[in-house]
Amino acid sequence: MRQSKTVKESMTELSEVMQPVHANHYGNVNGGVIMNLVDAAAFVVATRHARTNVVTASIDRMVFKAPVYIGDIIILKAAINYVGRTSMEVGVRIETERLKDGVRVNVGSAYVTMVALDKDGKPTDIPGLILETDEDRRRNTEAQKRRAIRLAEKVKG
Amino acid sequence: MRQSKTVKESMTELSEVMQPVHANHYGNVNGGVIMNLVDAAAFVVATRHARTNVVTASIDRMVFKAPVYIGDIIILKAAINYVGRTSMEVGVRIETERLKDGVRVNVGSAYVTMVALDKDGKPTDIPGLILETDEDRRRNTEAQKRRAIRLAEKVKG
Amino acid sequence: MRQSKTVKESMTELSEVMQPVHANHYGNVNGGVIMNLVDAAAFVVATRHARTNVVTASIDRMVFKAPVYIGDIIILKAAINYVGRTSMEVGVRIETERLKDGVRVNVGSAYVTMVALDKDGKPTDIPGLILETDEDRRRNTEAQKRRAIRLAEKVKG
Amino acid sequence: MRQSKTVKESMTELSEVMQPVHANHYGNVNGGVIMNLVDAAAFVVATRHARTNVVTASIDRMVFKAPVYIGDIIILKAAINYVGRTSMEVGVRIETERLKDGVRVNVGSAYVTMVALDKDGKPTDIPGLILETDEDRRRNTEAQKRRAIRLAEKVKG
Amino acid sequence: MRQSKTVKESMTELSEVMQPVHANHYGNVNGGVIMNLVDAAAFVVATRHARTNVVTASIDRMVFKAPVYIGDIIILKAAINYVGRTSMEVGVRIETERLKDGVRVNVGSAYVTMVALDKDGKPTDIPGLILETDEDRRRNTEAQKRRAIRLAEKVKG
Amino acid sequence: MRQSKTVKESMTELSEVMQPVHANHYGNVNGGVIMNLVDAAAFVVATRHARTNVVTASIDRMVFKAPVYIGDIIILKAAINYVGRTSMEVGVRIETERLKDGVRVNVGSAYVTMVALDKDGKPTDIPGLILETDEDRRRNTEAQKRRAIRLAEKVKG
Repeated sequence: MRQSKTVKESMTELSEVMQPVHANHYGNVNGGVIMNLVDAAAFVVATRHARTNVVTASIDRMVFKAPVYIGDIIILKAAINYVGRTSMEVGVRIETERLKDGVRVNVGSAYVTMVALDKDGKPTDIPGLILETDEDRRRNTEAQKRRAIRLAEKVKG
Repeated sequence: MRQSKTVKESMTELSEVMQPVHANHYGNVNGGVIMNLVDAAAFVVATRHARTNVVTASIDRMVFKAPVYIGDIIILKAAINYVGRTSMEVGVRIETERLKDGVRVNVGSAYVTMVALDKDGKPTDIPGLILETDEDRRRNTEAQKRRAIRLAEKVKG
Repeated sequence: MRQSKTVKESMTELSEVMQPVHANHYGNVNGGVIMNLVDAAAFVVATRHARTNVVTASIDRMVFKAPVYIGDIIILKAAINYVGRTSMEVGVRIETERLKDGVRVNVGSAYVTMVALDKDGKPTDIPGLILETDEDRRRNTEAQKRRAIRLAEKVKG
Repeated sequence: MRQSKTVKESMTELSEVMQPVHANHYGNVNGGVIMNLVDAAAFVVATRHARTNVVTASIDRMVFKAPVYIGDIIILKAAINYVGRTSMEVGVRIETERLKDGVRVNVGSAYVTMVALDKDGKPTDIPGLILETDEDRRRNTEAQKRRAIRLAEKVKG
Repeated sequence: MRQSKTVKESMTELSEVMQPVHANHYGNVNGGVIMNLVDAAAFVVATRHARTNVVTASIDRMVFKAPVYIGDIIILKAAINYVGRTSMEVGVRIETERLKDGVRVNVGSAYVTMVALDKDGKPTDIPGLILETDEDRRRNTEAQKRRAIRLAEKVKG
Repeated sequence: MRQSKTVKESMTELSEVMQPVHANHYGNVNGGVIMNLVDAAAFVVATRHARTNVVTASIDRMVFKAPVYIGDIIILKAAINYVGRTSMEVGVRIETERLKDGVRVNVGSAYVTMVALDKDGKPTDIPGLILETDEDRRRNTEAQKRRAIRLAEKVKG
């Protein structure tokens, strides 16, 4: 029932052209629009892994290093880092391509924890994660550290 | 100045999660929303090839073979088929992934003609197209036929 | 059951003020927004003729001859050209009125094929078309030619 | 310079298909969406009459008598009722067509006062109004009564 | 069953940052966007008072005295003025805060009549209104005058 | 020039009615929509404190504990926790009110780091923070701990 899956099987790339409708009043892409896309990318990865309903439980550190401009194509690369019994951590890397010259810029990244739900809205078991590459393993180790910190904070709080 | 580029250099894949905001009143994704995404994909390909302003001149046959559902991830694969002096034909293939089971469905396709413009809004020369693969050449031949039909229609009309 | 209707009975004019939300990053109205409106106009005509659910099957040649500006009022005039057993071709003419001086500009046109569906989503019979005017007959003849080309292409493809 | 215009010259009909994006959480069209369209219709009429920038100054009584459903085509018929030196009253009639059976329903109406502005944002003179029909004159008389009430209220307030 | 409530119990303040998506083509916030927010504020007040479904019946005089700019935070203060058997008048005051310097500007106001509906969409009884302050009583008196005018107009019309 | 301000001076409450346009395909409010509102609330607080342009630098832990439903009124309470030389940490608390019965639910919270920018887009000095209450001081201490962790991570990474 819980047949494990590889990281690659749920890996996702979303991309979208940024239009004036996405602008803040400085004329750049609104931070909230990017967060919305990060959430969408994490949603796709988690659904591809769990093939159940999934909801966003938390975001650990989303960092913005560079602005995204109107007319850019924004690219979100998302992959599963860690799988618990009913929850998953998805890493999302945000890039932007300046369309006029093709330059790719690293915009930032985010770690999103998603929970799988059954039809009654209760957390439900998900497939395990097969780590195939060194990159998979490195990301998994870091995700486990973040998870330990989260759990420690919960006990204190 | 007009250094030719390969088909691969401008090849583009856009993808987006379909939300209720994209629905028609039957509950499926609105045809107009898909057309909007086709236009966006063609826009990216044409801009990547020409690296100038580009505008949509026409769409030759856009076909819809299957519905896209809310919750699907729609995927648009776009590539340049033919390059004239100032215009390009971009082919767009529309697919959808049913998220609950991962099935990929061929939704349809479209041929979009884009024109490159300079800063004064006048058509401007673009790089030539290097055909590398048999697929590139087959698409180019078909695009030339469509172009001949378009020109013949123009003369008549 | 299939009581025929005239072209006039389903003729439709949609119009809308173009706002910044409709802009592309050049500041003109996004081509995809216009396509969305073309689809909406064809949808109304087909529903008025068939009074069933209708879906977009294909678009044959949508041509854009002039830009639409933010602040314009865009006007879509749509009429049924041809009726098959379960499908219809709708012709859509796109105009724009520059609000500051009232000049009307011909933006382009499109031919949209819509299919009538019953409650189970299967194609369903629609009323025949009564051609009243010479204009009705001219458009019908041209639509039949386009249909013949489409069917010929299907056999080849 | 202030060459008068007829009511007919600026008469406007806007129409739009109501989609799920326009729904309130009961599933009908949001009242705010209809208000937005009323404002758009009044804007077009006032611009067509004044051919300057125009802004909404006030709305006198907007009445909603029937709901608009998703899938309806909403129709706004707007005409100028009264012209002052720099302001105009536009009457807007709201109708909806239930698409499945074609029934037209009177949804309500609104009176919108618009002011013409010059390039510095100051109120500016507009053309006078030529009343051609009995309907034109009846509406003009009623608009003058509403204006008298508005001015009386201002003095009191 | 109809246990009366105070004005304070349903008093509401909505606020929202104005983004480019809310702009008209002059670059200010669209009047229709503000109307939409007025309707939303009245909806919340009426629902808090009635705790049933509520719909907008009419708007008596909405006045705009100052523009709202993109980047402003718009603030809507809404309170119930008068309660009939199944309907309520909600007063909405519109303010805007210019974010760069913090100046608050009075944008305008509106009186919105909402009707409570039961599950079959029929008007339904609502709680009475407890007037606690002089301000409550003053607003109630004025609302009753507006109601008398509305009823008088209905008899005439 | 850097005259300090209290926490209270920039404290902000945003609230908005959740409509179908905000839904995900499960019918609840989209996580990305909530993130967008969190970003908007943090933007207002930071602008009120700094009265300069501000951009989102990062989000430290955004937690979602309960769903927000369509028809709810979502309420974001945001206050400044910590002020550095050019950056600020804003704490945002997310609540929702179920409109039918008035129950308030704690949805979650987020810590957002905003940076003040001058006209050339360079980080610029902001006013200091006056801690008035025990609550102000408690939040400031916790924000400093989070900041220490962030800086430590940066050194490692």
